[in-house]
Amino acid sequence: MASSLDSLEGEIETQNALFNELRLSGSDPAGLEEVKKKLGELKKSLGQAKAKVAADGSTASGSKEVPGKKKERILLKTAKGTRDYGPAEMFCREYVERIVKDCFSTYGGSCLDTPVFERKEILAGKYGEDAKLIFDLMDQGGEQLSLRYDHTVPLARYLAMMGGTNTQSKLWQVGKVYRRDNPVMSKGRMREFSQADFDISGTWDPMIPDAEIISLICTILSKIDVGEFTIKINHRKILDGIFEVCGVPADKIRTISSAVDKLDKLPWADVKTEMTEEKGLDPSVADKIGEYVKHKGGPELLAKLLADEALSANSSAKQGLDDMGLLFTYLSAYNVIDKISFDMSLARGLDYYTGIIYEAIVDASAPPGFKANPSVGSSSTPSPALPKKKVTKKLKNEDGEEEEEVDESQVGVGSIAAGGRYDGLVGMFSAAAAGDSKKSATSKGSIPCIGISIGLDRIFALVWPKWVEKGKRSKETMVYVMAAGDGLLVERMKLVKELRDANIKVDFLAKKKPKLPVQFAAGERDEVPFAIILGENEIKEGYVMVKQQKWEMIDGKKVKVLAEGDEKGEKVGRERLVEWLRATQIWKDWEDGKL
Amino acid sequence: MASSLDSLEGEIETQNALFNELRLSGSDPAGLEEVKKKLGELKKSLGQAKAKVAADGSTASGSKEVPGKKKERILLKTAKGTRDYGPAEMFCREYVERIVKDCFSTYGGSCLDTPVFERKEILAGKYGEDAKLIFDLMDQGGEQLSLRYDHTVPLARYLAMMGGTNTQSKLWQVGKVYRRDNPVMSKGRMREFSQADFDISGTWDPMIPDAEIISLICTILSKIDVGEFTIKINHRKILDGIFEVCGVPADKIRTISSAVDKLDKLPWADVKTEMTEEKGLDPSVADKIGEYVKHKGGPELLAKLLADEALSANSSAKQGLDDMGLLFTYLSAYNVIDKISFDMSLARGLDYYTGIIYEAIVDASAPPGFKANPSVGSSSTPSPALPKKKVTKKLKNEDGEEEEEVDESQVGVGSIAAGGRYDGLVGMFSAAAAGDSKKSATSKGSIPCIGISIGLDRIFALVWPKWVEKGKRSKETMVYVMAAGDGLLVERMKLVKELRDANIKVDFLAKKKPKLPVQFAAGERDEVPFAIILGENEIKEGYVMVKQQKWEMIDGKKVKVLAEGDEKGEKVGRERLVEWLRATQIWKDWEDGKL
Repeated sequence: MASSLDSLEGEIETQNALFNELRLSGSDPAGLEEVKKKLGELKKSLGQAKAKVAADGSTASGSKEVPGKKKERILLKTAKGTRDYGPAEMFCREYVERIVKDCFSTYGGSCLDTPVFERKEILAGKYGEDAKLIFDLMDQGGEQLSLRYDHTVPLARYLAMMGGTNTQSKLWQVGKVYRRDNPVMSKGRMREFSQADFDISGTWDPMIPDAEIISLICTILSKIDVGEFTIKINHRKILDGIFEVCGVPADKIRTISSAVDKLDKLPWADVKTEMTEEKGLDPSVADKIGEYVKHKGGPELLAKLLADEALSANSSAKQGLDDMGLLFTYLSAYNVIDKISFDMSLARGLDYYTGIIYEAIVDASAPPGFKANPSVGSSSTPSPALPKKKVTKKLKNEDGEEEEEVDESQVGVGSIAAGGRYDGLVGMFSAAAAGDSKKSATSKGSIPCIGISIGLDRIFALVWPKWVEKGKRSKETMVYVMAAGDGLLVERMKLVKELRDANIKVDFLAKKKPKLPVQFAAGERDEVPFAIILGENEIKEGYVMVKQQKWEMIDGKKVKVLAEGDEKGEKVGRERLVEWLRATQIWKDWEDGKL
Repeated sequence: MASSLDSLEGEIETQNALFNELRLSGSDPAGLEEVKKKLGELKKSLGQAKAKVAADGSTASGSKEVPGKKKERILLKTAKGTRDYGPAEMFCREYVERIVKDCFSTYGGSCLDTPVFERKEILAGKYGEDAKLIFDLMDQGGEQLSLRYDHTVPLARYLAMMGGTNTQSKLWQVGKVYRRDNPVMSKGRMREFSQADFDISGTWDPMIPDAEIISLICTILSKIDVGEFTIKINHRKILDGIFEVCGVPADKIRTISSAVDKLDKLPWADVKTEMTEEKGLDPSVADKIGEYVKHKGGPELLAKLLADEALSANSSAKQGLDDMGLLFTYLSAYNVIDKISFDMSLARGLDYYTGIIYEAIVDASAPPGFKANPSVGSSSTPSPALPKKKVTKKLKNEDGEEEEEVDESQVGVGSIAAGGRYDGLVGMFSAAAAGDSKKSATSKGSIPCIGISIGLDRIFALVWPKWVEKGKRSKETMVYVMAAGDGLLVERMKLVKELRDANIKVDFLAKKKPKLPVQFAAGERDEVPFAIILGENEIKEGYVMVKQQKWEMIDGKKVKVLAEGDEKGEKVGRERLVEWLRATQIWKDWEDGKL
């Protein structure tokens, strides 16, 4: 019975995906209605089947079958926590990626590409508790391999291999990383997800690379339409100093730090309980910490902290505060200081950070409409919203894997980019490769680094609904070549090739004698700005008819608008066609990114 | 002892990689010499250690250690058959990818992205014997997953999920695929490699999508500097017809077809032996096949085959010959007929092809110089060249995995793109999902498809040596901002930000008070065409000094050439700096792709 539930759920996903694809490609309402109806029926069947399972009191798999159903059915779906991105979505994702990569090279970065899997020992001991989320490859009689968990560790491995004399100090990587986490697909939290990383390595003067990275992320987020954003910054050395000043025992500093890290999700009272009851911290010490970590601000907060005599007397805190002072000076030169929030509650999970840490957050979170995305691997249904805490419950999924069901309505997109300074990681590799685990981070082979990871899926979850709402195109074909009468297939092919050779993006209907309205409809589905019509006479006399068309959103619907006075089209000489197309206003608007 | 060999080999790889990186980044000769010396010493040690192992008559691992060596050493290397691509290489690869993607959209394609791993059942039964090369993920208490083996099967899965009403008929995918094959790194045959696929799906008029695909690959290969190329084309239905006409029993057709597939690597005599001795074919039947498959040519070969009465009487062959006739007509319209070789010996391995099949080949193969690439995972040493056959020998690698050592000097780059028509694959998925394994490919849910896969690594292996030889830049930074005297760090940052805000790619030295020559050297390492120098006076009076510089290959070495009359630089007003830069000849040449 469980397997018939799976099949139903698989079918619902497929129909869901189809529905969305049709909706986005502007399919006719009748077709949409039919798919919607089928979807409704399937969901009803699923409900009934689930009720039956509950009544039977059994979820054992494979024991019973829905009558009439055959056995060998395979599930047409992507793996849990992964999804396909169809043509319209990819057009938007490529646009976002192009901006990100362009900013990376504007800031002097060069691309690095590392394999999707690494030798397991390379990833071992880098992610603390989260190591359980690493995807391992099956041992098929060779090396022990794991899928990369982020881009930072492969970069550090690469830098250690290069031996520290690598002259390229700014490297970027864009690619997928893998975590066996609980997926919340609609908010862009997946098991396979795309990260764009930019890292600066090498020994430079204090806080200059740090300011470059902060300026870079501000440039990127300003260029992508993610809405208002803030860069929260803190410094590991200031945090450590605060813990020392407040009287946290040395062996409790990391665990208390990870309690502080939860302040963006939990109120102070809960964090304090964790510190005192779970982790045995003296309540008066916790209260002192509470006083410090509630502060947020700009340079004025820095002045206040510098005036705190206890803190200034602590060498770790003092070093961190001096760093922050320098950073603020540089961020003013970069003109991004108004985007910064010096946030004492920011702690960041990873152990390897040694200097400033930061997160970019946006006010907006993904709107509910985005939830119905195609090819969602997870089949969890949102529970009713509850305030403050995430609602999770233990479930067995179709593969018998125990998983938490996450209430999607309670999960924000969260930080869309994050990172920090990690001066010891490359040195760890160099030391381990030299067989000396006791070598310190400052020894030969160590390379100070700072970097940022941008969550491309989270950014896409913010940008995509706006993209759809604005009715942006999802293809860049500029010309559709068609012919009346006898089809003139070979003549169409020749013209298409001629235009493509001039680097114009052209398509035509792959039919021998298609009717003209069918060809127009095909061109309109691609929202092609130029329809070129060939005819016997036109070919003889060496010209073509060109109709210019564009689409506008009117009352939430896309409507074709012909250029003024262009209802009949324009006669253009074949020999000046390319030049003519490139000189039109529609062409220029497209090149300027307005269409 | 074995593990100490591994360590030495790991170190040699690291030093090799370092050496290449330094050489490409134009490092100083003294530094290069030092690395080279160290490399020599390491190789000597390796030789001695290997000799010792041989003398000991033991390769048991972990039993002995080189004196003074500690135990916990990890191997700093990428997984077998995978490699990093450093900044210079990635700059070239991105250039190749950009051309490919641009051609894809010029031909009306839209991007599709599928996950790197699939549910194992999706890949099952698609690759015949080669299924053993699929990388499986470890069962960590969830679904059974495998890394994708190509882009074709995930595409077919996607199309089947979309249910055949998908309106986007031209889809492209660019990404990595995975095969546990014997790597020959220097020739671009790896376990992780990049493929760019373009597929046309849907029911269109005969041979039009087929001609689009052939024209597309000709366009791409002409735009990338791969040298002379040929597209070999054959038709599965013609091959099957030949086998029928020659008298091959129906149950032997596929196995005889795969013998024919080896004709590009083996002489006819060997293939005949395989057919007759291994596969039990009557020698006279084999001889008849031999007569047919030796033919290569253009439209004139088609005429000859059509005149062959036995062949024309065979319905399968007749259908294939008619298809080819139509295809030749269309390929003439696309003006690519001179690139085509109708090659009766082309058979292609995969079972699922149903119509035309094709391969793009180049005369050139990767030159020996490319062998010394960085981060090569395999440590096999080429054996002396032997004629005709590949030289392989069984070895145990560092993980105890048995592997074949391939003589790299005997492996060509081979086909750089290949594909064919597969009208039944999507239908297989639809049928399997509906639980009906007997549904035919022509039933509802079936979608005819044709596609091509371009081997990006193989193309890179051809393009990269020329790229290096021509001394092309490996970075696109246009401006390096520097200052004399007091360093003027904040002023440099302000100018850098100003230029970056105008979308100019700019960098500067991340030091507070760097000496001017050090800044010039840093800019020259990036081969930046504009050096901008700030000074106290310049800032006060609102101008900057700009030096234009370019690099030329003179006697195989890159040499900086100052623009004529520009030895002292030029005074440019700050307010017109952006405009001025964009108006220079160097800038325009760069934009036109000449630099």
